[in-house]
Amino acid sequence: MRDPIHSYIYIQSPVILDLINTKEFQRLRRIRQLGTANSTFHGAEHSRFTHSVGVYEITRQICDTFQRNYPSKGNDGLWDNRERLVALCAGLLHDIGHGPYSHTFEHIFGTNHEELTAAILTSPETEVNQVLRKVSPDFPQQVASVIQKTYPNQQVVQMISSQIDADRMDYLLRDSYYTGTNYGTFDLQRILRMMRPYQDGITFHISAMHAVEDYIISRFQMYQQVYFHPVSRSMEVILNHLLLRAKWLFKHRQFKANNTPNLLLPFFENNFSLKDYLKLDDGVLNTYFIDWCDNQDKILCDLAQRFLNRKPFKSIKFEKATQQLIPQLQLLVAQAGFDPQYYTATNNCYDLPYDIYEPGKNHQVTQIKLMRDDGSFIELSAVSKLVKAITGRFLGDERFFFPKQMLKTNPLFCRKFQKYLKNDWLIDPASQV
Amino acid sequence: MRDPIHSYIYIQSPVILDLINTKEFQRLRRIRQLGTANSTFHGAEHSRFTHSVGVYEITRQICDTFQRNYPSKGNDGLWDNRERLVALCAGLLHDIGHGPYSHTFEHIFGTNHEELTAAILTSPETEVNQVLRKVSPDFPQQVASVIQKTYPNQQVVQMISSQIDADRMDYLLRDSYYTGTNYGTFDLQRILRMMRPYQDGITFHISAMHAVEDYIISRFQMYQQVYFHPVSRSMEVILNHLLLRAKWLFKHRQFKANNTPNLLLPFFENNFSLKDYLKLDDGVLNTYFIDWCDNQDKILCDLAQRFLNRKPFKSIKFEKATQQLIPQLQLLVAQAGFDPQYYTATNNCYDLPYDIYEPGKNHQVTQIKLMRDDGSFIELSAVSKLVKAITGRFLGDERFFFPKQMLKTNPLFCRKFQKYLKNDWLIDPASQV
Amino acid sequence: MRDPIHSYIYIQSPVILDLINTKEFQRLRRIRQLGTANSTFHGAEHSRFTHSVGVYEITRQICDTFQRNYPSKGNDGLWDNRERLVALCAGLLHDIGHGPYSHTFEHIFGTNHEELTAAILTSPETEVNQVLRKVSPDFPQQVASVIQKTYPNQQVVQMISSQIDADRMDYLLRDSYYTGTNYGTFDLQRILRMMRPYQDGITFHISAMHAVEDYIISRFQMYQQVYFHPVSRSMEVILNHLLLRAKWLFKHRQFKANNTPNLLLPFFENNFSLKDYLKLDDGVLNTYFIDWCDNQDKILCDLAQRFLNRKPFKSIKFEKATQQLIPQLQLLVAQAGFDPQYYTATNNCYDLPYDIYEPGKNHQVTQIKLMRDDGSFIELSAVSKLVKAITGRFLGDERFFFPKQMLKTNPLFCRKFQKYLKNDWLIDPASQV
Amino acid sequence: MRDPIHSYIYIQSPVILDLINTKEFQRLRRIRQLGTANSTFHGAEHSRFTHSVGVYEITRQICDTFQRNYPSKGNDGLWDNRERLVALCAGLLHDIGHGPYSHTFEHIFGTNHEELTAAILTSPETEVNQVLRKVSPDFPQQVASVIQKTYPNQQVVQMISSQIDADRMDYLLRDSYYTGTNYGTFDLQRILRMMRPYQDGITFHISAMHAVEDYIISRFQMYQQVYFHPVSRSMEVILNHLLLRAKWLFKHRQFKANNTPNLLLPFFENNFSLKDYLKLDDGVLNTYFIDWCDNQDKILCDLAQRFLNRKPFKSIKFEKATQQLIPQLQLLVAQAGFDPQYYTATNNCYDLPYDIYEPGKNHQVTQIKLMRDDGSFIELSAVSKLVKAITGRFLGDERFFFPKQMLKTNPLFCRKFQKYLKNDWLIDPASQV
Repeated sequence: MRDPIHSYIYIQSPVILDLINTKEFQRLRRIRQLGTANSTFHGAEHSRFTHSVGVYEITRQICDTFQRNYPSKGNDGLWDNRERLVALCAGLLHDIGHGPYSHTFEHIFGTNHEELTAAILTSPETEVNQVLRKVSPDFPQQVASVIQKTYPNQQVVQMISSQIDADRMDYLLRDSYYTGTNYGTFDLQRILRMMRPYQDGITFHISAMHAVEDYIISRFQMYQQVYFHPVSRSMEVILNHLLLRAKWLFKHRQFKANNTPNLLLPFFENNFSLKDYLKLDDGVLNTYFIDWCDNQDKILCDLAQRFLNRKPFKSIKFEKATQQLIPQLQLLVAQAGFDPQYYTATNNCYDLPYDIYEPGKNHQVTQIKLMRDDGSFIELSAVSKLVKAITGRFLGDERFFFPKQMLKTNPLFCRKFQKYLKNDWLIDPASQV
Repeated sequence: MRDPIHSYIYIQSPVILDLINTKEFQRLRRIRQLGTANSTFHGAEHSRFTHSVGVYEITRQICDTFQRNYPSKGNDGLWDNRERLVALCAGLLHDIGHGPYSHTFEHIFGTNHEELTAAILTSPETEVNQVLRKVSPDFPQQVASVIQKTYPNQQVVQMISSQIDADRMDYLLRDSYYTGTNYGTFDLQRILRMMRPYQDGITFHISAMHAVEDYIISRFQMYQQVYFHPVSRSMEVILNHLLLRAKWLFKHRQFKANNTPNLLLPFFENNFSLKDYLKLDDGVLNTYFIDWCDNQDKILCDLAQRFLNRKPFKSIKFEKATQQLIPQLQLLVAQAGFDPQYYTATNNCYDLPYDIYEPGKNHQVTQIKLMRDDGSFIELSAVSKLVKAITGRFLGDERFFFPKQMLKTNPLFCRKFQKYLKNDWLIDPASQV
Repeated sequence: MRDPIHSYIYIQSPVILDLINTKEFQRLRRIRQLGTANSTFHGAEHSRFTHSVGVYEITRQICDTFQRNYPSKGNDGLWDNRERLVALCAGLLHDIGHGPYSHTFEHIFGTNHEELTAAILTSPETEVNQVLRKVSPDFPQQVASVIQKTYPNQQVVQMISSQIDADRMDYLLRDSYYTGTNYGTFDLQRILRMMRPYQDGITFHISAMHAVEDYIISRFQMYQQVYFHPVSRSMEVILNHLLLRAKWLFKHRQFKANNTPNLLLPFFENNFSLKDYLKLDDGVLNTYFIDWCDNQDKILCDLAQRFLNRKPFKSIKFEKATQQLIPQLQLLVAQAGFDPQYYTATNNCYDLPYDIYEPGKNHQVTQIKLMRDDGSFIELSAVSKLVKAITGRFLGDERFFFPKQMLKTNPLFCRKFQKYLKNDWLIDPASQV
Repeated sequence: MRDPIHSYIYIQSPVILDLINTKEFQRLRRIRQLGTANSTFHGAEHSRFTHSVGVYEITRQICDTFQRNYPSKGNDGLWDNRERLVALCAGLLHDIGHGPYSHTFEHIFGTNHEELTAAILTSPETEVNQVLRKVSPDFPQQVASVIQKTYPNQQVVQMISSQIDADRMDYLLRDSYYTGTNYGTFDLQRILRMMRPYQDGITFHISAMHAVEDYIISRFQMYQQVYFHPVSRSMEVILNHLLLRAKWLFKHRQFKANNTPNLLLPFFENNFSLKDYLKLDDGVLNTYFIDWCDNQDKILCDLAQRFLNRKPFKSIKFEKATQQLIPQLQLLVAQAGFDPQYYTATNNCYDLPYDIYEPGKNHQVTQIKLMRDDGSFIELSAVSKLVKAITGRFLGDERFFFPKQMLKTNPLFCRKFQKYLKNDWLIDPASQV
């Protein structure tokens, strides 16, 4: 298979080919990887399908390198090639539980893509499960446990999920390529060459330090530049409010019979099956949104149009000190005729670009270890000044969203509103005098 | 706007910005540029929106170059900058009339994207028309006439449609980038630099010969490699048969009330409005296909699943001499339990990579003229041996499609069927003895 | 080793590492791959060293693919891995006999880089020979015979020299990268994947047809665009005349004692040793040219300045019919005060982009064979219309070079001269009336 | 002119074309940009010529952007287009004073490329000066003053030399391209678009923050990875010692008459003219080194061979605490028969990746200012956490160099020597017990 990131994706095992041909996996073609981000970066129209085969390919290359350079001869902490198939399947299927606009959808309907991934792997009704079961009866559960990080072999687990894994490496390169930014590039080939298995997981030779550092910095930059972009987040806010409104209308029986969004009903009723979930994709949701553009509920109709026709809210950053001013802003928005519940929002985006292990911390992570010439380890941020600078700090911002109409010069409450805005920040007009 | 092909797309005119923000244009985000091709080249998930802004950007660059280097001082055949806006709008909107899976959809429902483009531009009910009318009352019609090639200024017409125009240059580069093939690349910057307006349209300085030649060859290679790929064509065959079956079922009143594909009804009834058409996109069609996977009509259900879950037909090439054998193959397919009307097809794909003007020919084209140092013209194929080799010849192939199941080793009629196949060609088994 | 074309060059054998570290190989760092071409394409400053390690890397990748996919089990026409080292060494060393500005130098001094390659490999005085001999006493001769195409295993020979070999594939990609043109690109990875050994050499699976076709076309375009560029050829003409003049001056004892170009003496005297030859590089020749800029011989001094300071001759194309006019042009050049022997030249450049085997022909070549699904072969130009168009035809041009001063508007003989020039062609002014 | 970094370099002014055609500028073709670095990164064979035209091209693009977007209407701190030519010439010529292996050569012979640049511009004997004088009598001095940073218009000065100037932007992109590393890439086009002139120099719109940050980080990474590479520094150490030895031999009259390196004599005698300097290039120096390979002085001969045939010294890092151990190491090297004066060295490489203005500091720099929406400025490190982390800190290392032979297992003093080495650091063997 031709691929713009990896040139080719080599499928050597019939199990992998059969998994790709299942309907659950083909469904990923109809779910965009970056959700609303292509409203900002129009090139970013790639799907979770494309990313998933990319993660498979990187996993395959890691397995090949490990088998070529570090084959285990038994109990030596090196690579046991019998782990290959479970690693490849986990790489390919790690995102199989994602649905349309996952983040927002989960928030509104209480679904959980990680549980759904496990369900798709282990439920006998799916084609994916049928393919996996042919390998062995407990194979579906094994693949699921890799994704859940409970699999005993930490090398396999860390390949798929750690601070530098096949998933992240593929999405950085791919999102960078499709958005056309060049922040996400790093030297994949060198990182792969310098990876090596050891007793407790995966390490890198010290000579890969700069390549690994560059990967961490690239990741940090992609978050700042692409994933946290205010316009994409604004579109997500609108989507969130749109689904919330639909849920409210359903609860209050305001959908007419011939307009019922049939495929969403089980979710409105909070009583859905795996089969219901697997029918959803971006197109299904958008089809309802198109329908709602003619709905007699003004808010539903307006938000649907804003979402489909890309009319994002505007936004400003705020901090603890200015957060208390937000109710004043919401009041002015209400004066302009917009229900603040549906037409304003606060939204924060924080990323922990890299972290080290500290006993007692909330977010326990597998830190990146480099192996020196004499076989001893050193943790990445101990040798990289750049990584050190961003280690353990949550970076991001908190934003307040509001309709663009508030930026008009008239009427008066608009001008009042704008006194709270300066250089992309929420300020206290009182303190400016 | 960030763009992977042109780095940035520069929107300098508020008219262009307003056009991009219309709902008719935003709808292009939900229609993939290459239809079914991403079943073969999984990276090719880009939309007509992305391509359209790219065509705008190339048009803008041509206008800038013309204005910088060849500004008209009146009646000298050079560039009149008052043509700029009509050119930019035509470049941006040339594909606005496309719907989901255009080629097949048109074939089944008799829609015509060129007429629909004109309708969207000139119908007072569209947002696009409202934006264009603000420029001047006859501006919508002017833009339409550029796309219909009836606009008086041939420089503007040829920018948008000729054998080397902004449309083709963008889609070659873009499709090449997103598929990850490198056949479609050529030196856009040099071609743009060497373009120049003259009395009867657009010409190129002779020193651009190799760049233009490379563009023609790249185009030829993209057709052979990507656009004519048998698997994509096979998916199109399935889509065609699926919609045909749906139409047949509708005609014979086999759709149950609660399963009616509402948004398609006007097309089944051959009585649709522009508003009906503008509600369609890839996701809407796919949503019906998802629904049809549970339909009790076995053929509809099976074809919908094949389309959604990517189960292409197999195919072989045939020529005039072997065409007569196809009924024999269809008979064997029928024996296997597949209705040949829905499970086989012939499909041809031919491209005319480059052509010269010859009085009396069917396909009249604007040939590519190069300007020599002394101001005289010479036609491209007269100086390029490579272009000469493919000028005026239709290149492509004709294929017969059938279910993959015919390649099994059992039962007997499968083995019989396979006697007709050799090295991707249909052969006469009788002649092989 | 980091490489811009192949990302990394992997040295796995100590023999290869030792060969790279010999002084004869390190000397290639000081000889530019494209000779005078960087006067036209200023980016093309790469050396034969860089190209040679690239050829090694492609050869290594071919050997790896062959060993992985087609390991011989004895007398089956597949790949015998004992051939690996001889192939790698031949790939690395195929250009070791090249000196500075090879083409011109050979022409003037009668050296022969192929013979010199063999001498460097087999002469006991070189470090290269010492490294090779450690493998086995007859190993130097074996490597030499691969380069001379007399080695019995045709798979090894064709890897290094055939119409699609590691040498050509590296230089096309590399020259394209460094010149910044994009004509030389093709899908190396696909070609390598689809290569396979067979009894009589190397073949390609039919599904590589388009990639191989693209390689042939790319090669054709690089010749037309880069290798045959008139300005580079003009610089070569100047170099040729400069060395000719120096030889003449030496013969007529016009070099003063303290100005003798010591390292060139053995070549003036036509009595040079291998050691003499290995002292030469681009810098040595240029150093003499710098010295000659102060020489009292006006022609030597002027040509040296033209070469070093890039003052190329102008040129026009001519054909058989107009060749007879050249003496008239030379007469006018002489009237302008330029000795036609040193200030004019004719120079032809022809390439045979692809050829097929025909008994009785002069240029016998190994044609490119594609293997079909049933194991039968088909020759490339039989399936590719583009390749067919350029098969067996010598493509290129013949040019007449003259000083730029002839293009001035005065005096009269310049204006007379210019009557012979039209649109880059030599014409007969008499026939224009 | 085709260029791999900027696609094309557009020469629009005859002054620029004439400058490129001077012999002083053409000489830059024969001087490699990165000196000894291509011994580590073999692709890095590009010359100062290539870089210089690149700096010109970026300068041209800045001038174009300034003139298009910020043309001065008198005394408004915007761009005065009469400054264009002086900016372009300064960009093109900023490196004209460089000679072969500049850094080392200057160190040994006390030349100064900045003074030499001024001399080449202002001395009436050079072709460069003759071209510049045609513009106006004081034009050569004006161009020189831009390069010396004394020119009154700070916009022009900062274009050519500041923490983010045309010089640095070109060499980062170019060195990255030719080495094949991808650390040096950043979004040139965005930076150029967001640059704007103001009263005191050049600033950037705040929305370019991430692009500017990325440039600073890229620069930091290139220093760490490429410019400070221990092997290149080792080759420079050898070159330094080689020239030192030659100077010593000359001083002690050890060069035979027919072996005198004529073109170096004026430098040995510390009595050179501009004309002498302009005869030097990489090739001239290498030609002497080739000659010295046969010299009877063993040290000169050995160092020349090490330099030409790439036999670098090995090295380890040390810090203040371990510096005192170096004499012990030198003693062991001497025991191995190597004169420590010529066979060992310490060498430090430090870079100040970014700095802010602080009154009273030694290294006063123009800090990077970003302009916010309300027109106020903010300094880069105040908004970028990554830049903050490396601001004002010298980053790099100090290394001790020694012959590779010290790493052999025998004799005893080698094993003793190795006790001082651990994980690329100099350690105190006594403290390890």
